[in-house]
Amino acid sequence: MEFVVSNRMSKIKGSAIREIFKYAADPNVISLAGGNPDPALFPNKELSVIAKNILEKEPVLALQYGITEGYMPLRETIKKRLKSIENIGNDYDELVVMSGGQQGIELTCKNLVNEGDTVIVELPSFIGATNAFRSYGANLVGVPVLEDGMDLDYLEKVIKENKNIKLIYTIPTFQNPMGVTMSIEKRKKLLKIAEENNIHILEDNPYGELCFNGEKTPTIKSFDKTGTVIYAGSFSKILAPGLRLGFLIGDKNIISKVTVAKQVSDVHTPMLPQLLAYEYMKNYSIDDLIKKMRETYKHKCQTMINAMEEYFDSSVYYTRPNGGLFIWCDLKHGIDSLALSKKAIEKKVVYVPGNTFMVDMDAPCSALRLNYSTMDDEHIVEGIKCLAPVFNEAIKEAENN
Amino acid sequence: MEFVVSNRMSKIKGSAIREIFKYAADPNVISLAGGNPDPALFPNKELSVIAKNILEKEPVLALQYGITEGYMPLRETIKKRLKSIENIGNDYDELVVMSGGQQGIELTCKNLVNEGDTVIVELPSFIGATNAFRSYGANLVGVPVLEDGMDLDYLEKVIKENKNIKLIYTIPTFQNPMGVTMSIEKRKKLLKIAEENNIHILEDNPYGELCFNGEKTPTIKSFDKTGTVIYAGSFSKILAPGLRLGFLIGDKNIISKVTVAKQVSDVHTPMLPQLLAYEYMKNYSIDDLIKKMRETYKHKCQTMINAMEEYFDSSVYYTRPNGGLFIWCDLKHGIDSLALSKKAIEKKVVYVPGNTFMVDMDAPCSALRLNYSTMDDEHIVEGIKCLAPVFNEAIKEAENN
Repeated sequence: MEFVVSNRMSKIKGSAIREIFKYAADPNVISLAGGNPDPALFPNKELSVIAKNILEKEPVLALQYGITEGYMPLRETIKKRLKSIENIGNDYDELVVMSGGQQGIELTCKNLVNEGDTVIVELPSFIGATNAFRSYGANLVGVPVLEDGMDLDYLEKVIKENKNIKLIYTIPTFQNPMGVTMSIEKRKKLLKIAEENNIHILEDNPYGELCFNGEKTPTIKSFDKTGTVIYAGSFSKILAPGLRLGFLIGDKNIISKVTVAKQVSDVHTPMLPQLLAYEYMKNYSIDDLIKKMRETYKHKCQTMINAMEEYFDSSVYYTRPNGGLFIWCDLKHGIDSLALSKKAIEKKVVYVPGNTFMVDMDAPCSALRLNYSTMDDEHIVEGIKCLAPVFNEAIKEAENN
Repeated sequence: MEFVVSNRMSKIKGSAIREIFKYAADPNVISLAGGNPDPALFPNKELSVIAKNILEKEPVLALQYGITEGYMPLRETIKKRLKSIENIGNDYDELVVMSGGQQGIELTCKNLVNEGDTVIVELPSFIGATNAFRSYGANLVGVPVLEDGMDLDYLEKVIKENKNIKLIYTIPTFQNPMGVTMSIEKRKKLLKIAEENNIHILEDNPYGELCFNGEKTPTIKSFDKTGTVIYAGSFSKILAPGLRLGFLIGDKNIISKVTVAKQVSDVHTPMLPQLLAYEYMKNYSIDDLIKKMRETYKHKCQTMINAMEEYFDSSVYYTRPNGGLFIWCDLKHGIDSLALSKKAIEKKVVYVPGNTFMVDMDAPCSALRLNYSTMDDEHIVEGIKCLAPVFNEAIKEAENN
C-alpha cells in the first residue's frame, strides 16, 4: 500500500552520514567519525555487580513499570550534584530523567515549537538536534560559531529578521562539532538577549565535565534567574552511552509538559539503566571516573593535534579544544570535504564532512569533524597520517587551479 | 519567563487519571487501576545472572552506543518467533526494536499523520495511544467496540464522513480496556475495508500471548499481503515492563522512516534490556514463562469474576475475557464512574473511570476498567467486596430517581 510521509518527517533527508557510518563499522577502517567514548573507561565490573544484586534482590524495582518522571533517588542525586558542582537549580526548576540527552532536546521542541516556528542553531551544530527540530517542521536559522562561541551580533540580527522564534539551541562547552567553548561574557550576554526577546535557551551540555584542566566554565543555566534556560544533561559521556540516560532541568511548568510528552513517547526510561547510574554514584566515585576520562581524552586530543601539526599542510585550520571529544578542521580553498571523504575511505579512514552540521546540508563545506575519543593512540596517529596526503593533495590541486 | 505550549501538545489535557494513580501508589490502597503484570512472574534470578555475565564479559556490547534499528541478534530472534507462532513477516516487511510498544505507536503517528489528519480509534481505547495521537494534533474519531470487536458498519460510515484518514488503531486481542477479542471474520473484513480505502491499520498486540486456553486468534497482520498493517509488539507483558522493550514490524519503507524518527527521539533502545531479552530467549524458554503467565492470569480473572458475580448487583454488565489483563464493567443507569471513583477511594479501592478511554473525555461515562493481574487473590476479592456497596448503592439511588 502506498503511503505519504507526514510533512514534519519529510523535512529530514536521508543523509550521506549513514553511508559513512557503514564504513566506520568495518574493523579495518580507522573511524575518526563517531562520538563514542573510549570503552576502556566503562566501569563495567562495578556495573556488573550492581546489576546482579539489584535484579536478584529488587525485582519489582528493576522490572516493574516505573514513573515517567524517573526513579526518585536518582533524580535527587542528580539535582544535588548539579547544585554542588554547577550551581544549577532554582525553586521554580524541576528535573525529569530522559532516555538520553537526545530525548530532552526532542521533547523540548515538541512542547515549545509549532510547525513553521523558528529555532536558532549554531553553525555548525549537532545533527541529532538539528534533525530533531526538523522532525517537528521547525524553521532552522543558523548563527556562526567563533572561537569564543556564537557570534552574538549576528544573533541579534537574526532575531530582528525572524518571527516566532521559540528556541536558541546551543552547546556552549566543548561544542559539537567545533570543540570550542563560549566565553563567560558571551554566556551572560546571550542570556540577556534571550530574556529581552522572550526566547528560551536550550543549553545542551553533554561534554562539560570532560574539561582537560579540571576547570569548568559556568553554565548559562547557572546565571539564569528567570526560567529562560532549559538544560539538557547526559550520562553518555561520563558513564556509558549504551545506557541511554540523560535528564532535563528547567522551569517546572515546562518540565511538567515534557513529562506528559515523555509518557506518550516511551512511558518511562528503563529502570535498570536508572538503577545502575544511581547505585554507581552511591557506591563509587563518579568524580574519580570523570577525572580518569579527562586525563585520557586530554592525552588523546594532544596526540591527534601533534600528528596534525606534523603531517597536515600548514594552511589547514583546526581548533584546539580544552575538553570534549572533537576537533574541527577546515581545509579551506573551496574544497568539498564530502567529496573528499570518498578518497579518505579508500585510505581506510572516515571522518564526518562539515556540511552534515549545517542548516543547508546541500552546500559544499570545506570543514570536517575529527573525533579522538574512540581510537587508541596508534590508530589516531595512523588515521591522521593516512588523511594527510589526501588533504594535502587536495589543497595543492586547489591552489594550482 | 512566560511560555506558550505548542498547538500539538495543547491537545492533551491534564487527566484525572494521574490523580487516581497517586492513590494507587499508597500501599494501603487496593489498586485495580493499573496494568502492571504480576511481579511474582518476573524471571529476575535468570536475568540477574545474564546481566552480570554480559556486563562482565561484553562491556562494549552492553555499554557503547548501539544502532538505531536494534541489536541484530534480538531482531532476528523476534522475527523468527513472529514467523513461527504468528505467521507474521513478508518480504516487504522490516522490524525495528522500540523502547516499548508505546514508542511504536507514537512514531508511527509522527511519520504518517499530519496535524488535523484523522486517526480512527476504538471506543473505548488505550489512553496511551489516544494521547500519543493527540500529541501530534490528530483528529480522533471513535468507532464503538462490540463483544466481537469493532463495529464495522459504523467504521464504514466514519470512513465515508471523514477525509485524510491516515490510521485505524486497534487492539484486536484482549482489548484494552474491554478485554474482548475481534472475531476472525471481522479481522479479515477490517483489513479489506482498510485496503479499499488506502488507510493503514496500526495493530497493537501487547496481550495476544496471554490467552488463557493457549489458543491464539490469528493477528490481522498475518492476513496482510499488501503492507497495510503496521504491527506493534511488546515484551512488557511477557517478560517485564520495566525493560521498556517492544518492536514494530511493517512495510520496510515505513519502518525505515520510523527508524529515522527513532534516531532523533532516543538514538537507540538501551543495550542492556535488549541483551537481557535476547539472552533470556536464547538460554531459557520464554514459552514456559508465558504458559505460567496464562495460568496465573486465568486464575486471577476467574477469581475476580466469581467475586463480581457474588457481590455486584445483577444489573451490572461486565466482559468475560479469554486473556489479557482487564475486565470492562458498565454500571449503566447514567451513573458517572469518575464521580463515583471518589467514593471508591474512600473505601481504599481504585479503578480507572471509563471516560479516560474515550475520544471525548469530558462526557460522563457509566463504565470503568478493572485490572486483575497486579493484586493477589485475597486483594482481588477484598477489592470487589469493597467496591460492591459503592456500586450497588449508586445503582439503587439511580433506580429510585
